[in-house]
Amino acid sequence: MADLTGPVLVVGAGLLGTSIGLACSRAGVEVFLTDPSAENLRTATGLGAGHVYADQPVQLVVVAVPPDHLGRSVADALAATDAVVTDVGSIKSQPLREVLDLAPDSADRYVGGHPMAGSERSGPLAGSASLFEGRPWAIAVHDRARPEAVALVRALAVACGAVPLELSPEQHDQAVARTSHLPHLMAALVAGRLTEAPEGHLALSGPGVRDVTRVAGGDPALWQQIIPANSEAVLALLDEVRERFERLRSAVAGDDREALGVLLSEGVAGTLAIPGKHGGPVRPTSSVFVAVPDHPGELARLFADAGKAEVNVEDVHIDHDPGREVGLVELVVDIERSDHLVRSLTERGWTLHQ
Amino acid sequence: MADLTGPVLVVGAGLLGTSIGLACSRAGVEVFLTDPSAENLRTATGLGAGHVYADQPVQLVVVAVPPDHLGRSVADALAATDAVVTDVGSIKSQPLREVLDLAPDSADRYVGGHPMAGSERSGPLAGSASLFEGRPWAIAVHDRARPEAVALVRALAVACGAVPLELSPEQHDQAVARTSHLPHLMAALVAGRLTEAPEGHLALSGPGVRDVTRVAGGDPALWQQIIPANSEAVLALLDEVRERFERLRSAVAGDDREALGVLLSEGVAGTLAIPGKHGGPVRPTSSVFVAVPDHPGELARLFADAGKAEVNVEDVHIDHDPGREVGLVELVVDIERSDHLVRSLTERGWTLHQ
Repeated sequence: MADLTGPVLVVGAGLLGTSIGLACSRAGVEVFLTDPSAENLRTATGLGAGHVYADQPVQLVVVAVPPDHLGRSVADALAATDAVVTDVGSIKSQPLREVLDLAPDSADRYVGGHPMAGSERSGPLAGSASLFEGRPWAIAVHDRARPEAVALVRALAVACGAVPLELSPEQHDQAVARTSHLPHLMAALVAGRLTEAPEGHLALSGPGVRDVTRVAGGDPALWQQIIPANSEAVLALLDEVRERFERLRSAVAGDDREALGVLLSEGVAGTLAIPGKHGGPVRPTSSVFVAVPDHPGELARLFADAGKAEVNVEDVHIDHDPGREVGLVELVVDIERSDHLVRSLTERGWTLHQ
Repeated sequence: MADLTGPVLVVGAGLLGTSIGLACSRAGVEVFLTDPSAENLRTATGLGAGHVYADQPVQLVVVAVPPDHLGRSVADALAATDAVVTDVGSIKSQPLREVLDLAPDSADRYVGGHPMAGSERSGPLAGSASLFEGRPWAIAVHDRARPEAVALVRALAVACGAVPLELSPEQHDQAVARTSHLPHLMAALVAGRLTEAPEGHLALSGPGVRDVTRVAGGDPALWQQIIPANSEAVLALLDEVRERFERLRSAVAGDDREALGVLLSEGVAGTLAIPGKHGGPVRPTSSVFVAVPDHPGELARLFADAGKAEVNVEDVHIDHDPGREVGLVELVVDIERSDHLVRSLTERGWTLHQ
């Protein structure tokens, strides 16, 4: 693997650019930053994400600009330097086409990337050196990419604490259409129906609808660029969904439980198809529910007591409760450890049941 | 308000019936249980959810059977006792119609209920006295219901730690079509598309798709009964979604960013329309991200340190990471306390950024 020795130039000091600057700086790699916004640049450099760029020679350019500007910015970086150039955009085929068109002779120095990390927030202040810890970082390897350029982009992902995964640009775009773009659009449709709820109806909202709609809170200006840039893969999936939607509607209208059951069972199978924690198969877990007063320190006391029981908490959910100052905390643990945890927490005075 | 003095008869010792038995017993109310399954009955009574029913006189009957059997079971309970009868089914209009048909003379003793609590798990072993803590409990008040019957069902909800909300059966069914049934069906469609993902594509799954699809893991046999029993309200919403879906598809196919933006913005508005924690307006929060080794005790140490900082953690998310033994924990806190928390945790040696 190529060594990332630096310096790295980050073009665009938003959430992702600033986070990459912070992660590389933490890894001991020198970072330079540019951004058309003087305020973003001041904030990012102030956070320690790097120094202001002044045409120093660099080993790697990371383009972290909005999807609409990716191709142009990558081509500009290829023209301005002899460095390897990558980007962190959510779509990979369209920018590559633009680069091949705008900078055909140096496109072999470009290898796109896409860290599977982000936030509903944006801007340099939301940046974090830890943003990529343990996350997949797609490396979109195209036919003309130089092997040493691919290796350097892998090294960037590793330096940021991420897990590099090589795919072709087309594979990448098809994969995120399914795992990100389609879920986002459908969540937006479900959330959109909440805006017309009659007075009082949303008081019946439980954790389910919150989970289904959460991603729909993302910035429309960003998604307005992402979706059209991956329209082919998104459309193919929308057509598959349309066919199932019509089957679903007919099943509901015609009281056809068998057809409804087929679609519901496909949904169950889909939830089980998502890879588990640490990429392995899904390990059987069990949930332990604990009533926790909504005061500072109570969660600390709960986790301290769970720690004393030597049970590793795999996941945590806190239920938002509409009427009282007691929360219900769900601790997800290895199924073989849950009985022990229940006994241990009960002995320590917690109100709970498995 | 009528006092819940008991005894309470719970018909059906599954997840909800057992949980109600446990909650009432905890509140000092005597509980009797029936279930066609001897094993369920043995488990529920063994957990302390009540005693086996032997025709003792009771104050209140709680019918906790699958949706298909609600009307018949409620009518049977009205015929067999002089008690007030309620149920805990997910739909309210259809069972009421059946009760008015089967037991017209005693339907004034029936008032339906629906605690907004549940689980992807089922059966008495998943029961918990805390299942209803702070959750809304819909009381479906129909025209012929006696006021004292309504009051007694309210008292049951309060005894279980829930927050009673009165609606008409029609209002209830329309509300849950929007906040529960539609989200479930759309989540199932999105999850269904994951089953056909090419090899390796699901490795790019992030927290978003997990959230959107989680509820789709629920028991198809239960949802096969719920959806047809609320088909009118569900169909109305499916038709609204179909109209938006076609607009969405056209926007993607025709690269119409403005139309796409309208739908995305409706989604954002929908996420903001869901009532906040404790039923109040959504308080501004901020997320603090902390890298936490995936070992027993580390979360305890983190929460202990957050507790020392006297910051109340409103919500917690643990990112499932596919490649390493370090998790990224998101602590959601009051925006005015987040800077203080960041400083405090950093001083204590945690790797984090706001």
